[in-house]
Amino acid sequence: MAVIRVAINGYGTIGKRVADAVAAQDDMEIVGVTKTSPSFGCDLAVRKGYPLYCTFDDSAKISAFAAEGYSCTGGLSDLLSACDIIIDCSPGKVGADNLAKYEAAGVKSIFQGGEKHSLTGLSYTSSANHQQNLGADCTRVVSCNTTGLSRTLMPLHNHCSEIGGISVNCVMIRRAADPGDSSKGPINAIKPVLKVPSHHGPDVMTVQPDIRINSLAVAVPTTIMHVHAMTVELPEGHGLTQDSILQMWHDSPRIIIMNGAKTRITTTAEVMELARDIGRTWGDLHEIFVWEDGVSLNENTLYYFQAIHQESDVIPENVDAIRALMNTEVEWEISVAKTDAAIAKFNNI
Amino acid sequence: MAVIRVAINGYGTIGKRVADAVAAQDDMEIVGVTKTSPSFGCDLAVRKGYPLYCTFDDSAKISAFAAEGYSCTGGLSDLLSACDIIIDCSPGKVGADNLAKYEAAGVKSIFQGGEKHSLTGLSYTSSANHQQNLGADCTRVVSCNTTGLSRTLMPLHNHCSEIGGISVNCVMIRRAADPGDSSKGPINAIKPVLKVPSHHGPDVMTVQPDIRINSLAVAVPTTIMHVHAMTVELPEGHGLTQDSILQMWHDSPRIIIMNGAKTRITTTAEVMELARDIGRTWGDLHEIFVWEDGVSLNENTLYYFQAIHQESDVIPENVDAIRALMNTEVEWEISVAKTDAAIAKFNNI
Amino acid sequence: MAVIRVAINGYGTIGKRVADAVAAQDDMEIVGVTKTSPSFGCDLAVRKGYPLYCTFDDSAKISAFAAEGYSCTGGLSDLLSACDIIIDCSPGKVGADNLAKYEAAGVKSIFQGGEKHSLTGLSYTSSANHQQNLGADCTRVVSCNTTGLSRTLMPLHNHCSEIGGISVNCVMIRRAADPGDSSKGPINAIKPVLKVPSHHGPDVMTVQPDIRINSLAVAVPTTIMHVHAMTVELPEGHGLTQDSILQMWHDSPRIIIMNGAKTRITTTAEVMELARDIGRTWGDLHEIFVWEDGVSLNENTLYYFQAIHQESDVIPENVDAIRALMNTEVEWEISVAKTDAAIAKFNNI
Amino acid sequence: MAVIRVAINGYGTIGKRVADAVAAQDDMEIVGVTKTSPSFGCDLAVRKGYPLYCTFDDSAKISAFAAEGYSCTGGLSDLLSACDIIIDCSPGKVGADNLAKYEAAGVKSIFQGGEKHSLTGLSYTSSANHQQNLGADCTRVVSCNTTGLSRTLMPLHNHCSEIGGISVNCVMIRRAADPGDSSKGPINAIKPVLKVPSHHGPDVMTVQPDIRINSLAVAVPTTIMHVHAMTVELPEGHGLTQDSILQMWHDSPRIIIMNGAKTRITTTAEVMELARDIGRTWGDLHEIFVWEDGVSLNENTLYYFQAIHQESDVIPENVDAIRALMNTEVEWEISVAKTDAAIAKFNNI
Repeated sequence: MAVIRVAINGYGTIGKRVADAVAAQDDMEIVGVTKTSPSFGCDLAVRKGYPLYCTFDDSAKISAFAAEGYSCTGGLSDLLSACDIIIDCSPGKVGADNLAKYEAAGVKSIFQGGEKHSLTGLSYTSSANHQQNLGADCTRVVSCNTTGLSRTLMPLHNHCSEIGGISVNCVMIRRAADPGDSSKGPINAIKPVLKVPSHHGPDVMTVQPDIRINSLAVAVPTTIMHVHAMTVELPEGHGLTQDSILQMWHDSPRIIIMNGAKTRITTTAEVMELARDIGRTWGDLHEIFVWEDGVSLNENTLYYFQAIHQESDVIPENVDAIRALMNTEVEWEISVAKTDAAIAKFNNI
Repeated sequence: MAVIRVAINGYGTIGKRVADAVAAQDDMEIVGVTKTSPSFGCDLAVRKGYPLYCTFDDSAKISAFAAEGYSCTGGLSDLLSACDIIIDCSPGKVGADNLAKYEAAGVKSIFQGGEKHSLTGLSYTSSANHQQNLGADCTRVVSCNTTGLSRTLMPLHNHCSEIGGISVNCVMIRRAADPGDSSKGPINAIKPVLKVPSHHGPDVMTVQPDIRINSLAVAVPTTIMHVHAMTVELPEGHGLTQDSILQMWHDSPRIIIMNGAKTRITTTAEVMELARDIGRTWGDLHEIFVWEDGVSLNENTLYYFQAIHQESDVIPENVDAIRALMNTEVEWEISVAKTDAAIAKFNNI
Repeated sequence: MAVIRVAINGYGTIGKRVADAVAAQDDMEIVGVTKTSPSFGCDLAVRKGYPLYCTFDDSAKISAFAAEGYSCTGGLSDLLSACDIIIDCSPGKVGADNLAKYEAAGVKSIFQGGEKHSLTGLSYTSSANHQQNLGADCTRVVSCNTTGLSRTLMPLHNHCSEIGGISVNCVMIRRAADPGDSSKGPINAIKPVLKVPSHHGPDVMTVQPDIRINSLAVAVPTTIMHVHAMTVELPEGHGLTQDSILQMWHDSPRIIIMNGAKTRITTTAEVMELARDIGRTWGDLHEIFVWEDGVSLNENTLYYFQAIHQESDVIPENVDAIRALMNTEVEWEISVAKTDAAIAKFNNI
Repeated sequence: MAVIRVAINGYGTIGKRVADAVAAQDDMEIVGVTKTSPSFGCDLAVRKGYPLYCTFDDSAKISAFAAEGYSCTGGLSDLLSACDIIIDCSPGKVGADNLAKYEAAGVKSIFQGGEKHSLTGLSYTSSANHQQNLGADCTRVVSCNTTGLSRTLMPLHNHCSEIGGISVNCVMIRRAADPGDSSKGPINAIKPVLKVPSHHGPDVMTVQPDIRINSLAVAVPTTIMHVHAMTVELPEGHGLTQDSILQMWHDSPRIIIMNGAKTRITTTAEVMELARDIGRTWGDLHEIFVWEDGVSLNENTLYYFQAIHQESDVIPENVDAIRALMNTEVEWEISVAKTDAAIAKFNNI
């Protein structure tokens, strides 16, 4: 089988991570990444050996790279002619324009959660709707928050869908800025997101419409990980126990369950330290972290806390989405296992 | 009518505020406040003109005050013989011992939310159960969080109690340390409270047992105000609208409702700045702050955000509780109006 | 003697504080304050009883106030015709335009430290150059940092000026945002000010050219108080001791000296709590705070730390500057005593 | 030449990093690491393949490891009999006891900067006094701050030592807690270190007594990197320029110089993001980061800012110190080049 030729449009926070995850797979390769202009981020692409392209087709902008000492292979059109599929990691708001270019070039495309579902009409998370995405021309990998919700909710949904389904209330305590971003505040305040309900919860319904869900969000002065405070109403006759729910999550991919009291991992700080200790590049954590001792089932109401690494949980999902669109792997669990094993090897884990 | 003689046991964060609020009333006076030892906090009591007592009856400890230049009138027993009622603002864990002393002296007492309901068997918030407290010997003013919940939930409960009552889910985003406390962290982390559900929500039931409520809590690196992300299920046939709910809260005491978009008060930082602007001592905000544009009624589900000033919302409740126990004011709304008018005058508002 | 008629152009963070400080004096009164448009801040002016003017002379902008329910007395020109002196508390960058208007109206004016010395050609701090400002038409009260430096350096300078003077190195650890500002970062970073030396230190020379001083600055994620880490080289033969320096500062106005170990006031958080405890409006601290146990004299090198309340230390200086320009008080120490006594009385201290 | 057998006593924040750096070298190997008890940190040692020992010789404590599923090879005595040199990364305060054990076993030892110079009577940084440490039985690698100071000061000292030497004033703006530590504050305060001068600056004299240096320190609410605000007095006739100083640092190992304006690396947040981008394990930065546009030479006074990664800048210095004590590499620059090349290869850089 031919190796899938993958392009990255937008080599930034998400793009640089997706590129490495793709490059670690044996059934795909990176044929190029784009930058809008020569800048410090180009050094990383050069060091990794990814061909550098300009986000635009403008010859002046392309030649600007050489002036700063970077070898630029061409513009976006050139990159599109060299790839089977493009991962759009643009900063957002330019999705519609880009989609038209990808379609004109006959190249499949994957957008990120910053774009709306309406752009693509199809969204993706590995655990919810891989099969629905098979062979599609275009999809959208949902946001870090929606991806995290899907990971722990889908097993519950699958268990309960025949007997009435689940109803979910989620309060998202969001980090206000990424670790490498020193411009954003607040410094000493809590900021409620006054759009109620927030868009994060309902976005789960783009990948599994039968989950009833609402969410509220606040931003707080931290740079590492979102936390979700979850309340899930299970239907009568669910037959689940705290232990069986923990087992269900244990058997699902990309979920880490640890006991806060035993491991002294009691905040997002220690969760991130765990990610550093296990040697992940950038200190990333692709998995969702669930505190075992924060899970509580009270008759039909399930409470739990989960932490989401905002920069990285969607990375392996992009790899799986490539296989879905290219129709090279029908079973989501097989794709996930393949993706994660390749990344682990890359990380010397 | 004789002026009620009030003592404060523990002149710290809460005690110093209660003392001023009591002193502002024309039907009560401060007869003394206690400190465990001569320290910087004594200066404030001296400046305010409150007689200073030692928390203990130990003569060596009492005379230690004079050695540091403070006039100490006596020990706790002396203070108990000079008052009608004592407000216990001790740091907690010593409540049971103190209660025995108060009872032995035949003095009524009011504890704070750091103590458990089981200590007193009776709890208090102005809006929920003033009448139940009339003439009691001892009560407990519930915590800042429970007081805040009671303020906005009681009007909803009163409206809905005949038709099935309300069910509440609250996620508390808590400031991790008070503004004057530099020892506590975290600095860059979110800390879920792994006891699930947290104690805060169910504590509402100590003042109104018919409200069904659960809560989850996280601590975040700020020093000012808790935020509650509220989800309230209203019973069928509630007949309420967003506007009627806002009106209901507008007509209830100690709730401020403002529009975040119009006033640019979008985080707890700007709420606290409002409190400074309106001239409150210590920058306190006795009222609960509700964002008008964060209120959303979706059929039977009501969402809203409220902010709680952790150091001060219980202060006027302590004044009302004095009138309840002394049986000098039967109607809670009259006591509240009296309390607040006196404090406002004191603050030159 | 006639009461000095004072106007405030720009009723914001500084303007609202200066207004109250002026209003507390018996030799001056507030005749009006300006806002650019009807907004939440107008409420405060109304509550305080200050006549409200529009920053502009545009009749449409003036009548916009009435539409929002505020009584607006007129435009800037109207205000200029009603005052003897105007305190410009505009957000900066409009100083030159404003100065032309003030001069055209024949009104004396005082600018703030956000403007450059070159605008006015004359700067002011009470302790450095009150007499130099007597009768001037226009001056600039230096910034909070420069004011703070002047307070502790001037007594040292006065002592040493005949024997060679002092050389100062100051590193400013700056709060990155004001407490009511939730938009600015950083959240978890230290930001060096890469303009070296920073402008803060040399600005001292605008009020006392004989002090040799340089400064470096960093911004850190806090909202309360700047801290200055000071190193002062004293000339040979200075004859000072740690104790005599502390006594010198003790005898100087607007300096608070406290021992961190004894009072447990070990960070800016506890300093601000002190300001709240002593009942200052807005929790302000007009004084510079020096840690007694952080003062160390090592032969000719003096080390000390001081904390500066960025929102308020310049407030009483503006009052003194009014007296200087109006030539109503020749001695700076008499003006300072008068200013501070009136503010203290206003604050019920 | 035989491979040097290295043991790590205390496999924590520093210990785990030193172990990896040692293991990356071809002239040394890790023969064992110690933990006080079976805990989550043991997993990391197991995953890395480092033999696990108990910090104590107590057989009950040793067998406790097996009960938790970890294979423990023995106690400290066993480890001492298997190694040529031991790196003490204990939490401090137990240094004196440990040293006696190491000496009794005839094993060379290296302590960390948490211990005092008086314990060993000899300290170490690669750039200052490698040769002085050749063949010694015991030394102390100085703290992260002292190591960072030595890196940029030694080239200046070497240039100026014949013509009068340099005088240094350093203000350290310190991160208050490590990233994985959620217990420490402050949250919203600046904390001056009231011991003046702080111990950090003078500690440089333990490796180069001819540098005159004093320092002041403050702690601020961040978790990543210390920043040093430096003022260096150069002797008359130094002949240096800003450019020649930058070149001098450029030619010295373990210093990164970048322009903040050009690279948008303007705070410690972006510096740490750089470390993540270049693929360092744990996101570490062994190098000192100097902002090119923060360097300013004003006649004989040099100003600059440098950032120090508190968890990792001493790691390669420990490797070099091993070679010094084992007397296997006489030239510090050759050891440094060897150490860094091996670490870079390990990191796939």
